[in-house]
Amino acid sequence: MPTSLIDRLQLPAGPVSLADHDPSATPGLKGGKAEGKAALEAMDPELFDLEEKLLAGGYVGDPRRVLVVLQGMDTSGKGGVLKHAAGVFNPSALRITSFGKPTEEERAHDFLWRVERAVPAAGRIGFFDRSHYEDVLIQRVHQMAEPAEIERRYGAINDFEQRLVEAGTTVVKCMLHISPDTQKERLLSRLETPHKQWKFNPGDVDERAVWPAYTEAYEIALERCNTEAAPWFVVPSDHKWYRNWAVATLALEALRGLDLGWPKPSYDVDVQRARLVGETW
Amino acid sequence: MPTSLIDRLQLPAGPVSLADHDPSATPGLKGGKAEGKAALEAMDPELFDLEEKLLAGGYVGDPRRVLVVLQGMDTSGKGGVLKHAAGVFNPSALRITSFGKPTEEERAHDFLWRVERAVPAAGRIGFFDRSHYEDVLIQRVHQMAEPAEIERRYGAINDFEQRLVEAGTTVVKCMLHISPDTQKERLLSRLETPHKQWKFNPGDVDERAVWPAYTEAYEIALERCNTEAAPWFVVPSDHKWYRNWAVATLALEALRGLDLGWPKPSYDVDVQRARLVGETW
Repeated sequence: MPTSLIDRLQLPAGPVSLADHDPSATPGLKGGKAEGKAALEAMDPELFDLEEKLLAGGYVGDPRRVLVVLQGMDTSGKGGVLKHAAGVFNPSALRITSFGKPTEEERAHDFLWRVERAVPAAGRIGFFDRSHYEDVLIQRVHQMAEPAEIERRYGAINDFEQRLVEAGTTVVKCMLHISPDTQKERLLSRLETPHKQWKFNPGDVDERAVWPAYTEAYEIALERCNTEAAPWFVVPSDHKWYRNWAVATLALEALRGLDLGWPKPSYDVDVQRARLVGETW
Repeated sequence: MPTSLIDRLQLPAGPVSLADHDPSATPGLKGGKAEGKAALEAMDPELFDLEEKLLAGGYVGDPRRVLVVLQGMDTSGKGGVLKHAAGVFNPSALRITSFGKPTEEERAHDFLWRVERAVPAAGRIGFFDRSHYEDVLIQRVHQMAEPAEIERRYGAINDFEQRLVEAGTTVVKCMLHISPDTQKERLLSRLETPHKQWKFNPGDVDERAVWPAYTEAYEIALERCNTEAAPWFVVPSDHKWYRNWAVATLALEALRGLDLGWPKPSYDVDVQRARLVGETW
């Protein structure tokens, strides 16, 4: 039996050095861009079947759901994953949440308040575009909270995710790993391309200047929140086609792991058929 | 210039008789099932371009957005449209809301309260699976509200939709029109097919028995809420492939009508390029 992508990309327990992870690698995928795109499209029928089973279960009280968390530096491709990988799912089954700068109301609550409200319902597949990890990443790098508060959050995140898992959620946390050179190339491409210029934000260049601090913040978060209940996956993301295929494959493998079936009808099929066939109006 | 589908399917002002609309017609589409599916897939590149422009505009303060309202009898295919027609959109650009039986909290508010909260944000494309029209359809048929309250709602809906339009929303209201025979066939198919049985609800057979009352309620709602700001479209839906193509085409034509462009950058491209190229870390 071939190794699953979950096994290949799951971060081992212990200290994390992102330098040990090649962002241009393509583990588990045979071939290049064309093969990656074809393999992504080929998932469609199986995904449609599994997501429909998950949804059907949700309707009859099965609490299971899937949550894919996307984190990564600017231009690592969170939006691209949503467009291309989430795009192969039935939109009715999806719940996508993009976490921006917290609003005044959100800042007046614990950092997990807005996250709790965005958790997918039973039977659904949620994608988080950024997440509660921002509260230990950008907030750590820019010292937007006291060190003791940042420290508290790692444990709070682990408790929160543990509870999600106990409530029937399969949590797939993906760190979209790119090199600084790739980011530079992508930022320049946004600048040079009229239909991409709206995605460029001068603040991205400021953030880029503290790349090493972000790397450190990621390494700490990845190590401290890499739990058995909700492990981290490091997804090499210098190749967009690999990244899209890999995230969709991790979601697909998570769905396969649920061993989903069609729920049994809660009514008598023969009785209902007789009502329909014998109707007199 | 060929007639747009908007022109073909838009309901003329005045009294409505659904009997005048053939649910198995396929206006504006050349060919059958294979051609319908191919035409739907062929929309992808243009839709991706337009929805991205809409989203980009939303980021820089353009208030425009699109809201597609789906109404129709059980099995008319609201879920199928979401899967196949909404499926050609970028999921990040979509906001799908399914309106079920109102919760206790929702019932304690005006009927438009939950609808207002589900309106898509600037730059987004919303799909309503059922909508505020349930409050003048099922509620009228089953007398779940006083006649005077039902009466009040038609005007309240028109005012509400007028306001949405003034705030930059293009509202596309689609009545998915099927024949009772098609419904019977689809209900029987749900009963006979193990992976569809979870979608069957014995209550659907009860609702079917009051088909004429629903037809009347639809005709009244279609007539009274067929405004210049937010007109109704009757989409023949006995053929699933036509229905999916038609709803996607109406959304596409609505997007085309916005004459969208790429927003100009709010920063100096040369300055930002120099910062990136000249960085020293």
